[in-house]
Amino acid sequence: MKNINLTSDNVDGCSPEILQALTVASVGSAAGYGADDWTARAQDSFREVFEKPDLVMWPVITGTAANSLALSALCPPWGSIICQQDSHVMGDEAAAPTVLGGGVQMIPVPGEQAKLSPEDVEAAFSRSSSHGIHRARAAAVTLTQATEFGTVYSLDEIEAVCSVARRLGLAVHMDGARFANAVMATGVSPADMTWRAGVDALSFGATKNGAWAAEAVLFFDPRHADTFGHLLKRTGHLLSKSRFVGAQLEAMLDDGLWLRNAYNANAMAARLAAGLADLPGVELVMPVQVNEVFVRLAPGMADALSASGMGFCPWADLGPDVVRMVCSFATSVEDVDSVVEMVQALSVSLSGVG
Amino acid sequence: MKNINLTSDNVDGCSPEILQALTVASVGSAAGYGADDWTARAQDSFREVFEKPDLVMWPVITGTAANSLALSALCPPWGSIICQQDSHVMGDEAAAPTVLGGGVQMIPVPGEQAKLSPEDVEAAFSRSSSHGIHRARAAAVTLTQATEFGTVYSLDEIEAVCSVARRLGLAVHMDGARFANAVMATGVSPADMTWRAGVDALSFGATKNGAWAAEAVLFFDPRHADTFGHLLKRTGHLLSKSRFVGAQLEAMLDDGLWLRNAYNANAMAARLAAGLADLPGVELVMPVQVNEVFVRLAPGMADALSASGMGFCPWADLGPDVVRMVCSFATSVEDVDSVVEMVQALSVSLSGVG
Amino acid sequence: MKNINLTSDNVDGCSPEILQALTVASVGSAAGYGADDWTARAQDSFREVFEKPDLVMWPVITGTAANSLALSALCPPWGSIICQQDSHVMGDEAAAPTVLGGGVQMIPVPGEQAKLSPEDVEAAFSRSSSHGIHRARAAAVTLTQATEFGTVYSLDEIEAVCSVARRLGLAVHMDGARFANAVMATGVSPADMTWRAGVDALSFGATKNGAWAAEAVLFFDPRHADTFGHLLKRTGHLLSKSRFVGAQLEAMLDDGLWLRNAYNANAMAARLAAGLADLPGVELVMPVQVNEVFVRLAPGMADALSASGMGFCPWADLGPDVVRMVCSFATSVEDVDSVVEMVQALSVSLSGVG
Amino acid sequence: MKNINLTSDNVDGCSPEILQALTVASVGSAAGYGADDWTARAQDSFREVFEKPDLVMWPVITGTAANSLALSALCPPWGSIICQQDSHVMGDEAAAPTVLGGGVQMIPVPGEQAKLSPEDVEAAFSRSSSHGIHRARAAAVTLTQATEFGTVYSLDEIEAVCSVARRLGLAVHMDGARFANAVMATGVSPADMTWRAGVDALSFGATKNGAWAAEAVLFFDPRHADTFGHLLKRTGHLLSKSRFVGAQLEAMLDDGLWLRNAYNANAMAARLAAGLADLPGVELVMPVQVNEVFVRLAPGMADALSASGMGFCPWADLGPDVVRMVCSFATSVEDVDSVVEMVQALSVSLSGVG
Repeated sequence: MKNINLTSDNVDGCSPEILQALTVASVGSAAGYGADDWTARAQDSFREVFEKPDLVMWPVITGTAANSLALSALCPPWGSIICQQDSHVMGDEAAAPTVLGGGVQMIPVPGEQAKLSPEDVEAAFSRSSSHGIHRARAAAVTLTQATEFGTVYSLDEIEAVCSVARRLGLAVHMDGARFANAVMATGVSPADMTWRAGVDALSFGATKNGAWAAEAVLFFDPRHADTFGHLLKRTGHLLSKSRFVGAQLEAMLDDGLWLRNAYNANAMAARLAAGLADLPGVELVMPVQVNEVFVRLAPGMADALSASGMGFCPWADLGPDVVRMVCSFATSVEDVDSVVEMVQALSVSLSGVG
Repeated sequence: MKNINLTSDNVDGCSPEILQALTVASVGSAAGYGADDWTARAQDSFREVFEKPDLVMWPVITGTAANSLALSALCPPWGSIICQQDSHVMGDEAAAPTVLGGGVQMIPVPGEQAKLSPEDVEAAFSRSSSHGIHRARAAAVTLTQATEFGTVYSLDEIEAVCSVARRLGLAVHMDGARFANAVMATGVSPADMTWRAGVDALSFGATKNGAWAAEAVLFFDPRHADTFGHLLKRTGHLLSKSRFVGAQLEAMLDDGLWLRNAYNANAMAARLAAGLADLPGVELVMPVQVNEVFVRLAPGMADALSASGMGFCPWADLGPDVVRMVCSFATSVEDVDSVVEMVQALSVSLSGVG
Repeated sequence: MKNINLTSDNVDGCSPEILQALTVASVGSAAGYGADDWTARAQDSFREVFEKPDLVMWPVITGTAANSLALSALCPPWGSIICQQDSHVMGDEAAAPTVLGGGVQMIPVPGEQAKLSPEDVEAAFSRSSSHGIHRARAAAVTLTQATEFGTVYSLDEIEAVCSVARRLGLAVHMDGARFANAVMATGVSPADMTWRAGVDALSFGATKNGAWAAEAVLFFDPRHADTFGHLLKRTGHLLSKSRFVGAQLEAMLDDGLWLRNAYNANAMAARLAAGLADLPGVELVMPVQVNEVFVRLAPGMADALSASGMGFCPWADLGPDVVRMVCSFATSVEDVDSVVEMVQALSVSLSGVG
Repeated sequence: MKNINLTSDNVDGCSPEILQALTVASVGSAAGYGADDWTARAQDSFREVFEKPDLVMWPVITGTAANSLALSALCPPWGSIICQQDSHVMGDEAAAPTVLGGGVQMIPVPGEQAKLSPEDVEAAFSRSSSHGIHRARAAAVTLTQATEFGTVYSLDEIEAVCSVARRLGLAVHMDGARFANAVMATGVSPADMTWRAGVDALSFGATKNGAWAAEAVLFFDPRHADTFGHLLKRTGHLLSKSRFVGAQLEAMLDDGLWLRNAYNANAMAARLAAGLADLPGVELVMPVQVNEVFVRLAPGMADALSASGMGFCPWADLGPDVVRMVCSFATSVEDVDSVVEMVQALSVSLSGVG
């Protein structure tokens, strides 16, 4: 039997369309370091999709680099950045935002479902600015959309955080490693979800959504991009054959691939959640709004699933016995049903024991 | 007429074999972050090619990252690193070795043909260690093979530098962005040219040699690799879909692709140099030993070539009017002959004027 | 009337004994950069006072430098450091531990009275080590004794944290900016409170306790001090005329000056707390265990006190209307009584209104 | 016999006037962190002495910190800084300008007598800006006045460098650890030697000139000082009892103490040079223009002097057998004559042998 791997949405290879674009791009010579035509066309596509003709796009190879470097363009090294305490930038990037940001301080704040509330942002800012020069004053806030716990901010929620940020003089960054999934889940337009609400820069993820290795940093205010080339180069993140990322991004936006892929991932997660919801020994611990399912499994179930060859990820941040299962562009109905069956079988067996 | 682009060996796309490997790798799920099978097999290939069963290989996406992070694994932040003053790490990485090395100091030293001499290394070390705690004492030396000026170290020259380094307690790094070209040019085995001579870590380049974006950091002493995963992750250089680099590296080593590609690049440069050597108004300013040709052009020629659509790179470090032309895996005999014809035509025209 | 300034214990000048020591030291030539006799004698005194003949002492000029550099000697840049969320290292050093630690991550954890509990340390460690290479694993923990809220750890409490730390492989640092006050308050010996309990390094503060600018970093395990000279020098913290700090530290330990000064500061704070405790409109929000008094004042009182020329510090971290008053080596009974009278007068006046 | 120590001008204690100022300042309470009256008065004095009513002064504790932090206020982390290769910032600060400057690159250039020439500055800038984003473009240049080899720039020389810098858009920093000595030696006014010539920021040294530990960073354009408080604090360089530095600086400028002290140091060095100049086995290797004497000693002399208890410093940067002898505010005629006698005796003895 095929081993099903839901450890992350980055365990799968790449979409055929991505492969095809790279095949076409593999021949001939081109300028490098971001000056190639593919990157230019990808930027044009982003301008169209985001309805923002002057946005500036830089291709990057990892989400960690995209977030860290985007933040370092928004916040001086002596400032601090407000983030949700369970967010990827805080807990899964091994301090890269601090390292690449020249020692900038991250301020983790609590928040339900891995989301920031405007009240908590304001309180954190107030605290950060209460000791003058002795405390690193917040200069930016970063939202994750969709969040690290697979939930999404509503447009109102985004606007509320951005509104507070604007009042306090904070730049706003959005970690959109799963931005496509959030757009698909909410039906909110990319423009409304970002710059129209007050977002200054977006890390637009493609890797988890079917690319090989491609993220786009979008600056909605071009002035924020002024020094970005330097930041990339001095940290080893400026690719010589930049067309390689540009072509992936161009293909991802072309003909809606990014949305189709996200649609599949979200739909499979919904199917998985529905299949698991009522099984004994299984408890959904987060609403399933995009492509991630967090469940608490009865003792022994995780080990048994693992032994059957299924891949998933323990997620202790949500408590003992909680695991994460993530669907991707490549997850099929058969995969999902197969997982549900395995869990069901374990569930019955456990119930039988009980 | 086709525009010929010899600006760099990274202006071309990728080898068909690389594309083919990525096509095969694009399907199915796999562990990420370096734990995939492609990366494991690529490591095995490197172990075989370098005749070193315990070497540790980490895939990286840019040469700047490979060099900077390898050096940071060899030298503490408070140390310094001896390099040739015209080398890529010194002049073309925008201080990345310092940035990613936590503030490590680079010590540029002169040297003919962009090569370090053992005497200069010793003098630089001696100087670096003459002011106690007040001066950052050298802890490593980095050689570039082939060099930034397209020359190669003979095995004797490498051994001489390594021998001094060993005596002084310096770790030795080799920037091998064009390592394949050097191997091809010298006929020296990879093992002899590196660890047997005393090299501790090698940045093995594949990008310039026909890959999309793939470099391998090789640690010949596994202890140097102990913390490398941390260094990668905290600088945004750990790829989730690491198979994407692993597959390129595996394909590059498979069946000698790396050597075949380097052979072509070197041969085309030799042909180009031969064609240009005796033309009036053209002067070779460096011996052509690998795939780079540095020529001084009579006034006006560079502009005229540029106007004809040919791509090359001004190289002021070697003096006014000097340009660099680089051949790659994809450069053809027709490309070279076409360039020679263009230059010849300009040369005649200039001579006619004179 | 004299303006009384209880803003901090660093608003006063220096003890006569310190001045006297500097007067004596001002003449003649001496080796610098830590190699002077005063520093050597100060180290000897620390060895005696801490009953640890092999401790290594380095003089530093600010508490922020002492803490940041000590921590960077205990924790690699890719690690993280557990601290209490209200601690000075977290909230009043403008990210210096991160900046000077090469991008090390601080992990703030909650805790009553600004103290860490062993349970919270263990939970934080567990969380920090749950995502492999993707999360900066804790390598050290830092305690503040006395704490930022003027409370003290009992010996049992210190031992409990150290015991967990030892089990988890965490190095232990103690921020002792007010160490003397804590020793005076608890009667626990310096040795018991530190290395015998499991503390690896102590920032021993003298500045707040009557010196001009002098802190001592004590490494109880000499191996931790191996690279400290480099860390000092490359951050601009190695003083040429190091005798200037050495002499202050020597004088501070000589004949118990450090304890006498701390005794006065603590006693004055106790007197202040007693005087304020039962006044209407005044609420002690923290137990007064050393030389700091945190009180919530009825609306209007703070402004009125300020207008009368009294100095204190708003401390929003403990809630609105909370202020901090700190006594020092130079605070007199008259000062304290004068403050109590002022508050009492305001209190009566407020009560009268109400 | 008294041991005479000419190792550096920082081996002596402090001037009586400095001690007196600290004695007066030691009593009473005051605002800290640079907001004290002594610092304000010192800033006023600097404004008067430099004839620049809007200059901004920040007190710092070491020359390394003064230089590094001043430079980091003038140059972004991704820029580079041109300096003379033998300068203190390059060779005696253990990379602190790079560390505290967030990874900024230092560009060492040659130059007679440790001085920069306008031609070399221009060539270095040109080289630094020739590879676009791949090379850290110079954004600042730093001069040392007096230089590391005890020579001084004439006003014309300073203006020539500043003029090139202005044309190229480079900010200009002057390392004035021995600024007083240079003023004394040239008779050029502080204003003419700095901002009127085009210097943007000066590290004004007091420590080597008779203070305990006090340097002033002067920004002639107040905008450069905007973020300096943050830079100080986050690197542990903001002193709580800042009056301690302010008082030293105030005393140093008061009644010309800085010039009197420098006068003595320079005069004693001149006397020493005169005494040594014609002795067999002794060769002055640098013109003696301020308070430093660099001499090549015949083999064996250095060891013999050392054995006699005299302190000096080997200075291999100027060749084998070269030593540096530095006079200070505290060096007396007797000291100098005593050294000359010792050397003469050795000289005779050597001649006798030869």
